[in-house]
Amino acid sequence: MQTKFLNENIYVKSYASVGSFLEKKSRYGSYLDLIIEDPIANRKTWEEAESAFQKTAFTLALKKASLNNENIDCIFAGDLINQCMASSYAFKEIGIPFCGVYGACSTMALTIISAANLIASKMAENAAAVTSSHFCSAERQYRFPLEYGGQRTPSSQWTATASGCTLLTKNETDIFLSAYNIGKIVDLGVKDSANMGAAMAPAAADTIMSFLHDSNTAPSDYDAIFTGDLGEIGSNLLYGLLNKENIDIKANHHDCGLLLYNKEIMDVHSGASGCGCSAAILNGYIFKEMQRGTFKNILFCATGALLSETSSKQSETIPAIAHLINFRRK
Amino acid sequence: MQTKFLNENIYVKSYASVGSFLEKKSRYGSYLDLIIEDPIANRKTWEEAESAFQKTAFTLALKKASLNNENIDCIFAGDLINQCMASSYAFKEIGIPFCGVYGACSTMALTIISAANLIASKMAENAAAVTSSHFCSAERQYRFPLEYGGQRTPSSQWTATASGCTLLTKNETDIFLSAYNIGKIVDLGVKDSANMGAAMAPAAADTIMSFLHDSNTAPSDYDAIFTGDLGEIGSNLLYGLLNKENIDIKANHHDCGLLLYNKEIMDVHSGASGCGCSAAILNGYIFKEMQRGTFKNILFCATGALLSETSSKQSETIPAIAHLINFRRK
Repeated sequence: MQTKFLNENIYVKSYASVGSFLEKKSRYGSYLDLIIEDPIANRKTWEEAESAFQKTAFTLALKKASLNNENIDCIFAGDLINQCMASSYAFKEIGIPFCGVYGACSTMALTIISAANLIASKMAENAAAVTSSHFCSAERQYRFPLEYGGQRTPSSQWTATASGCTLLTKNETDIFLSAYNIGKIVDLGVKDSANMGAAMAPAAADTIMSFLHDSNTAPSDYDAIFTGDLGEIGSNLLYGLLNKENIDIKANHHDCGLLLYNKEIMDVHSGASGCGCSAAILNGYIFKEMQRGTFKNILFCATGALLSETSSKQSETIPAIAHLINFRRK
Repeated sequence: MQTKFLNENIYVKSYASVGSFLEKKSRYGSYLDLIIEDPIANRKTWEEAESAFQKTAFTLALKKASLNNENIDCIFAGDLINQCMASSYAFKEIGIPFCGVYGACSTMALTIISAANLIASKMAENAAAVTSSHFCSAERQYRFPLEYGGQRTPSSQWTATASGCTLLTKNETDIFLSAYNIGKIVDLGVKDSANMGAAMAPAAADTIMSFLHDSNTAPSDYDAIFTGDLGEIGSNLLYGLLNKENIDIKANHHDCGLLLYNKEIMDVHSGASGCGCSAAILNGYIFKEMQRGTFKNILFCATGALLSETSSKQSETIPAIAHLINFRRK
């Protein structure tokens, strides 16, 4: 069975989210723990800045949990920058065992699942899951130099400048992971790297269907179903794919890519994207509203497009993946 | 404690290794399961070829274990190509839950540890750990276009064109993992990307010392201690760093980067490197000699330099990491 039900619950000890000036102006900006107004964050390069965002999110989560570095058994981290550079450089001086993870924009879910496994196998008491993205480091790596001012197609999404960190623990707290689903790679042949929502929707559909089937539940059993960063186009495609299987999630579905920015006042085209997008929404809006009791049982399905600049240039299709976690509140 | 002792043993069900013409000519070439003579492997690009090596290693390991795709709960894979493209594209059609892992040349150890955790947490019966590297895809990404024919410095290492796959299981076999150590990132300030052995040696020293301390053992307690791809320069630096702490591993230390090629007849400078280097030696020479009984208790410490082309251009130092596994034979 693709869905894994945790024998012993793994708990969310603490969480933190960091964004920049654009994320602050967003609908859910007030849920972020910290705003670093200037996206360069007093560093020399965009990559160093992204590392700073990630380290800040980790430090904040640690502080909120009243824990020290010595209490964290392992950090699981990843990002979009070649060789996961933002993560490696963020934690190079921290002295905590480190596992690099690559799941493109699905990384927030993948790092949490990895950390949960380490705790579930009794190898750790506390483990951290961290990820980030940065508009400026992503644009120059995947698309054009910022100075070029290239026009963006209507289907494109805006990479969030944000980071999120979730600290997991074996010790009981209010919010816990009760199940997860590690996705399969799905590739329906989309080649347009400016339409990643379309590439990722089939992966989201595959993972959500697998989870609902394995858990014998319906979308209405959950207070909310969050997808990672499908954006407007991807979300609509997801509805279509699920409708074919007589599954309707529209009533309680939210896409982090549509939650992060405020489309009415911000021209982000199809929505937000980047590892930092779902990371900021999960560790800002979702967990805070779970703690308040607004949500008691949710699905978090982060999506990732596993393309690279090289694969795009080689006219390859875009494989995608989606990893899902069922978070519950006591 | 940084070292984790597995409560229940995790077993090596099967393993396979694949190399190309240069790896075939190497000292341990006869241990490889398959040689794909032409490194492009009938594909259009070096990246596609690398994916083919990885898929071949996985398929061979599965075949040797008489298992099918349906028997594998999860694949953990990673490589050196930007966005771990070789791994994602290798497994995009296989229909098995997939976790991307990034540990640079330490990936063979990190994928095995990740797979072991999934099994140890009772979420899987069988899981695969796979990695690869390819001289041609790595050279053009990190250094120069192949056609340029750039000269290599004496401290540089030759990226192996190889892949290795280890299948882990909860069901008893002869070879098992008894402990592992997830390394911390160590950065002593080396900036020369053509001397990665020097950058990685401190990380290897840190992880080996941590393991020996936690397990209260000495190097002589092991039949052999294998490091990933420190090469000649890195191995000598490792001896020096450990000697300072009164630890002498020289008597039973082997570096996969020095084992893979035959320095007497092949001009690979400081040795071999790449995720595929230690993957090929582990899943070729080491496991086969363990099965024969030559080794009964070994340490496998894969090393990774967490640099990127971007970090090199930005004159950043090279953070490194080493993950260690203690394999034993019944």
